[in-house]
Amino acid sequence: MHRDVVVCEVGPRDGLQIVSHIMPTSAKLEWIGAEAAAGVSEIEACSFVPPQVLPQFADAAEVVAGALKIPNLVVSVLIPNLKGAERAFQAGVHKINYVLSASESHNLKNVRRSTHESLEDFRRIVELRNSNTEWRRIQLCGSVSTAFGCTIEGKVAEDAVVRLAEQYVEHGADKLSIADTVGYANPAQVKRMFTRLRAQLGGIELSGHFHDTRGLGLANVHAALDAGVRSFDASLGGMGGCPWAPGATGNIVTEDLVFLLEAGGLRTGIDLERLIEVRKIVERALPKEPLHGGISKAGLPLGFQPAVS
Amino acid sequence: MHRDVVVCEVGPRDGLQIVSHIMPTSAKLEWIGAEAAAGVSEIEACSFVPPQVLPQFADAAEVVAGALKIPNLVVSVLIPNLKGAERAFQAGVHKINYVLSASESHNLKNVRRSTHESLEDFRRIVELRNSNTEWRRIQLCGSVSTAFGCTIEGKVAEDAVVRLAEQYVEHGADKLSIADTVGYANPAQVKRMFTRLRAQLGGIELSGHFHDTRGLGLANVHAALDAGVRSFDASLGGMGGCPWAPGATGNIVTEDLVFLLEAGGLRTGIDLERLIEVRKIVERALPKEPLHGGISKAGLPLGFQPAVS
Repeated sequence: MHRDVVVCEVGPRDGLQIVSHIMPTSAKLEWIGAEAAAGVSEIEACSFVPPQVLPQFADAAEVVAGALKIPNLVVSVLIPNLKGAERAFQAGVHKINYVLSASESHNLKNVRRSTHESLEDFRRIVELRNSNTEWRRIQLCGSVSTAFGCTIEGKVAEDAVVRLAEQYVEHGADKLSIADTVGYANPAQVKRMFTRLRAQLGGIELSGHFHDTRGLGLANVHAALDAGVRSFDASLGGMGGCPWAPGATGNIVTEDLVFLLEAGGLRTGIDLERLIEVRKIVERALPKEPLHGGISKAGLPLGFQPAVS
Repeated sequence: MHRDVVVCEVGPRDGLQIVSHIMPTSAKLEWIGAEAAAGVSEIEACSFVPPQVLPQFADAAEVVAGALKIPNLVVSVLIPNLKGAERAFQAGVHKINYVLSASESHNLKNVRRSTHESLEDFRRIVELRNSNTEWRRIQLCGSVSTAFGCTIEGKVAEDAVVRLAEQYVEHGADKLSIADTVGYANPAQVKRMFTRLRAQLGGIELSGHFHDTRGLGLANVHAALDAGVRSFDASLGGMGGCPWAPGATGNIVTEDLVFLLEAGGLRTGIDLERLIEVRKIVERALPKEPLHGGISKAGLPLGFQPAVS
């Protein structure tokens, strides 16, 4: 199946990250399996972080093992350091998303070291990956968090983001993800940033990670599409609300993103009605977690037709 | 004050239209006054329809009289026919938004006649306006509802929308509003439609009216901005939910729209923090009505600066 745009489901990682109730491993795998069956081709299944930091991901290796059994699914995980990468490589993931922040203060708070130290660690991860022939097929995606602003520092310089992206590429990143971690981005800024990154970085694949915290998530997607981005993260039901803003949505809603893309003629390979059904799995497992989204409430437009395959 | 984009608040009309609890006239005027004080330059204050059809607007003349006392505010109203236009002219409004649907079935259901009859009525409204020297300053805006799809007919032909827009112009419309009444539009469609309308209609001012029913409201705004549209309707707190989809949002949220525009460097003349405060007036008057929106929950980004005046 040809896909014009890759939609990566990050709910099992970014969505669950701030949920204190531990989702059972079986429910996580049911969720991941159902999304894959609906046509989602890449899922960020968990995070390899110390269990004492995020108990939600204590079952990371088990979740990855289960997800790897699903045919044609790219299993990705988030990792913050070399130690996490090693565990992820050993678990057999297809892709790792390495996280560092464009904002020094945010990086310090999030992964307890400087951005420079985070980059050095990434270099060591590339070396580790390259040292083992079995691991060489694993894709390394460098993520730049708080790329559009930071709740601690406020404005983040575009130059700093571009420089980090360049350093990632110099260190051997296969892909880059540019993230509006705190929902500060606006479409004009997004278009400017991605246009510049595409011009300065050559052909490396860029992915957009947007949060809908301030309502502009899908407008930012549209701006990134305009700038040529063809890969986006999203979370079922917009899970992953902002811990500092009760009731605010987190990630952009996968269902609404797929609607935007398919209605606009861009093939995602995802069956929207089946995707909407997956919400029931999450609702059953985490009945207290609010799920957001428009298309699941209002239904598909009468006569809706997905993009032609 | 120079405005790059005109934001028209339609909450007191489109927002209240499906609210069964009648908002007191004094609260409506407090709301309108507070938004004008926050810098909103145009407000659709009510609808001139028979009170037995929409009791919410039985006080239309009184609301208009109150709104007209506010300096520098364009007071617009929605009207569905000649009779309504006559009442609106007599009330002294600055602008009328005349409503007809691109979908025949929707027009029949909404205003109980064919689209052709609606257009004929618009022609008579233009004649009536022109027949009275005092009324000649009143702006006549022709609105095309269900321009991006219809809950009864499904797909609506772009050609039909363009033809209606042309007929409006031939009949003497000063402005046009193109409306996604039921929240079916997607950004690709919006950009194509407005690009075509701007190319075929000459310089007539086009306004975009989007609903966020399926989550794409602000993405559609961004697409319309790309196509050169510089005037948008929106509703405080996204009031005006879809009667067929409980819990779904209605109009795009004025606060989030202003955030999108100002953050992107487009001047609206609106003070966002004062605008967010206006929600309290509506919450007090209609405590049971849900208000939506991201920026009001999550707050302005740290270091946020509005567009430079």
